[in-house]
Amino acid sequence: MGGGMALLFAEDGVHVNLSDPSEEAMDAVIAKAEKSGYNGKITKHTDYDSLCKSLSTPRLLVFSLPHGGVGDKVLEGLMPHVSRNDVILDCGNEHYANTERRQNKVKDTGIRYIGCGVSGGYQAARAGPSMCPGGDKSALEEVLPLLQKVAAKDKTGKACVGVVGKGGSGHYVKMVHNGIEHGMMSAICEAWGIMRKMDMGYEEIGNVLKEWNASGELEGTFLVSIGADLSHKRGKGDDPSTQKTATSEQHPLVISEVLDKVVQDVTGEEGTGIWSNTEAIELHVPAFTLNIAHAFRLASAFRGDRERASEALDGGFPPSELEIQDKKAFIEDLRQATYASCLASFIQGFNIIARADQQHEWGIDYSQVWQIWRAGCIIQADYISDELLAPILKSKPSSDDLNLNSSSRVAQDIRKCFPALRRIVAKSVETDQVIPAISATLEYFKVASGTDLPTSFYEAELDYFGSHMFDRKDDTDKQVQKPMEGKHHFEWKPATSQKEEYGKNYTF
Amino acid sequence: MGGGMALLFAEDGVHVNLSDPSEEAMDAVIAKAEKSGYNGKITKHTDYDSLCKSLSTPRLLVFSLPHGGVGDKVLEGLMPHVSRNDVILDCGNEHYANTERRQNKVKDTGIRYIGCGVSGGYQAARAGPSMCPGGDKSALEEVLPLLQKVAAKDKTGKACVGVVGKGGSGHYVKMVHNGIEHGMMSAICEAWGIMRKMDMGYEEIGNVLKEWNASGELEGTFLVSIGADLSHKRGKGDDPSTQKTATSEQHPLVISEVLDKVVQDVTGEEGTGIWSNTEAIELHVPAFTLNIAHAFRLASAFRGDRERASEALDGGFPPSELEIQDKKAFIEDLRQATYASCLASFIQGFNIIARADQQHEWGIDYSQVWQIWRAGCIIQADYISDELLAPILKSKPSSDDLNLNSSSRVAQDIRKCFPALRRIVAKSVETDQVIPAISATLEYFKVASGTDLPTSFYEAELDYFGSHMFDRKDDTDKQVQKPMEGKHHFEWKPATSQKEEYGKNYTF
Repeated sequence: MGGGMALLFAEDGVHVNLSDPSEEAMDAVIAKAEKSGYNGKITKHTDYDSLCKSLSTPRLLVFSLPHGGVGDKVLEGLMPHVSRNDVILDCGNEHYANTERRQNKVKDTGIRYIGCGVSGGYQAARAGPSMCPGGDKSALEEVLPLLQKVAAKDKTGKACVGVVGKGGSGHYVKMVHNGIEHGMMSAICEAWGIMRKMDMGYEEIGNVLKEWNASGELEGTFLVSIGADLSHKRGKGDDPSTQKTATSEQHPLVISEVLDKVVQDVTGEEGTGIWSNTEAIELHVPAFTLNIAHAFRLASAFRGDRERASEALDGGFPPSELEIQDKKAFIEDLRQATYASCLASFIQGFNIIARADQQHEWGIDYSQVWQIWRAGCIIQADYISDELLAPILKSKPSSDDLNLNSSSRVAQDIRKCFPALRRIVAKSVETDQVIPAISATLEYFKVASGTDLPTSFYEAELDYFGSHMFDRKDDTDKQVQKPMEGKHHFEWKPATSQKEEYGKNYTF
Repeated sequence: MGGGMALLFAEDGVHVNLSDPSEEAMDAVIAKAEKSGYNGKITKHTDYDSLCKSLSTPRLLVFSLPHGGVGDKVLEGLMPHVSRNDVILDCGNEHYANTERRQNKVKDTGIRYIGCGVSGGYQAARAGPSMCPGGDKSALEEVLPLLQKVAAKDKTGKACVGVVGKGGSGHYVKMVHNGIEHGMMSAICEAWGIMRKMDMGYEEIGNVLKEWNASGELEGTFLVSIGADLSHKRGKGDDPSTQKTATSEQHPLVISEVLDKVVQDVTGEEGTGIWSNTEAIELHVPAFTLNIAHAFRLASAFRGDRERASEALDGGFPPSELEIQDKKAFIEDLRQATYASCLASFIQGFNIIARADQQHEWGIDYSQVWQIWRAGCIIQADYISDELLAPILKSKPSSDDLNLNSSSRVAQDIRKCFPALRRIVAKSVETDQVIPAISATLEYFKVASGTDLPTSFYEAELDYFGSHMFDRKDDTDKQVQKPMEGKHHFEWKPATSQKEEYGKNYTF
């Protein structure tokens, strides 16, 4: 991974001193650099002493490592060789708590440790990745000019990088980026699955996605645009023995042969999707779309379990072919339902960031988050960015005030697409289409704005068996609006024995 | 809380030595015990030295404490006063990792620390709570006779307690009990909300729940039975100033006045619902119903957020009145949909337990889990226990083999209730009823048995922008069934610059 990072900087004219436990891997990177004309731009070092001695001070050390213990080990190894004012830029998908632990660890030595989330992909490639750094302000200001050089540029030419906030906020915001990404990808693949059952060919679906990406609420949505592109690719994929990709017009469409397993969370390759969901839960943020999108990935990963369940269920409940009278109108509904789910993913993601910022006091600058997500990242969504987020985030709201659900501009779009979302879910339910994230989004919008939820009954049951207390509908104090314990209890079933008393006063 | 625990043991003839930082609280417990005729059965101690000296060895020390740091403090305070072979029975809703940390801490001293999940409520009251202990086997065998005395008894008279497994497995299984509880409560309240929109009165709904509890798939379901009971209660709830409950036939039905907020997760009163969901995610168990049920609780807690969103959305999307032609048939569908969601909650819960057991090697004895959940606990569900779980769990399956989704007996019920579940979701979607857990259950059954999911497209997108690899539909190796990285990559868009290379080889 560090190799890609090194080439990225070298391409922008930066001299890179490379250090990797594998000399072979370093040689491969250097060979690549030379092949591309960056001769001498990358030099290798087999030990930290030589690496650090070759850098002028204050040094900039860029980590590109897998998340977890590796970073601790590398940091420990480097510590004897670095000096006050050096900056470590951790560009991995690290858990923010690890980042903050390391920031605290090096604090007294004067080393500045920056957690910098990095997002990108092919579309972003020409313009560089989107970079999301957080940590010590002075250090960030020192490295920002360099990052602005390599980072993606938005359509106005401004770099997609900025100081997000203190501590581990950079890695945190990048983590939530990936949570949002999962919500969006789930919705888009569900829409794709529905179109498949409309007897549409892969390429025909690709053309629809291309239109979706061209204008309207899904305009400039990276995940839609690459979906359009990939739908037309022919070939057989790498042959694992020769490592060669066979591409030919004679081959079938690649998408027709891809199996339905998404395994990154389970293999440990990616932690960010897991963490965004556990964070939502631990911070008490209702994140219907993100939660279900993640669970959908998990279910997909265990293909053996699904095959066994299918067998027990005599084939399960596969989606029926869809017979749609007004195909054009239905596809327009589907577009709006997909958009609604992408929007819900953003709403839920920002709610997670805001709640975390309230807890950690990172002082997140939302105008920078907005800029960072403008281009180069996987969740790039131009319409959402321009039309909905710009007016809200560019004014740098405080995390106490940020909940997109109470924005009248966001509400305008939710109201507009809700009927289409409802129609798509209804039709899909009727015909057994697979729509976990899209249907969770429908429920989310109902629940997030519901003021007479059936949880009244839930609350009564809790008070019945656990004496959990409740608020009353005629309570007028401000506490009623807040997630605080209710003020009333009812003796639903007077206790007649100590065991009942016990049951009543105990949290089960 | 410890007071209730003390009274519980005293009622069964056990002499209890009480210790609590508040002497007042202890006096109140003793007064209660004397009022109930257990004079002298409970004595108080203001310090650990006196407490421990008054107990014969080996001592049995029962903790009834809030989860988190309190237990560590109490344990630390007790350590100088306890001796080898003493048993600590932690009956709180503690996080299993805290339990295991303490087990390891006291290991060398010969103290045995048992984590014992306890569940119960009014219905269980006469028969005592359901108790779920895990830890050192010899210690468990010593205390089991006492626990069998106080624990709930099932219909055959057998106590609902048993040795679940090693380490923190007792608290873990109890934690998942609460996760399942949340799934069930969500589904039941959603069904209640639907019936409210059928123009059914609170008491009429109570009568339906009573019927549901009497026979069929929801027979003997504690949460249905108390729902039936509470639907008829009249009164105004405790007046917070006088602490008195006004109950009178002149008063309105209590349920009509209860507000729709469930706050326990947010106030920190209860951790188990949070942990069951973060555990599911960290162990990669798809738990659609549990995840959404929990998120639903969270959304309900923040009433202020919901009110602001409702305002922005001009009132949001409240459920319409339901006009149902064949009311009886619809209610029967609703019963089956509710059952399906309860069943899904059990399936997902057992999958979490099994995955945790594989990781921690607790050697969980499922026949004991079955016995513990027979009676006295909140998720008591006689039909599910008798008809579905008994044949599977009583044979003590290994965690490697346990996935209820591949049981033909469970599949039989899923197939039977799926059409009703689909009809309820369809009608609810059409009319904006609030059904997060019920609709997540429908998606769960489709996805868990799906063998051609739209995640094919998801996987292709990941390979497109992140070179994440994929398996192919025509791959025949066994790896395909497992959550392992795919063997193929396709050059969807050949790289033309180092930045593209970078994008391709980096995990975003």
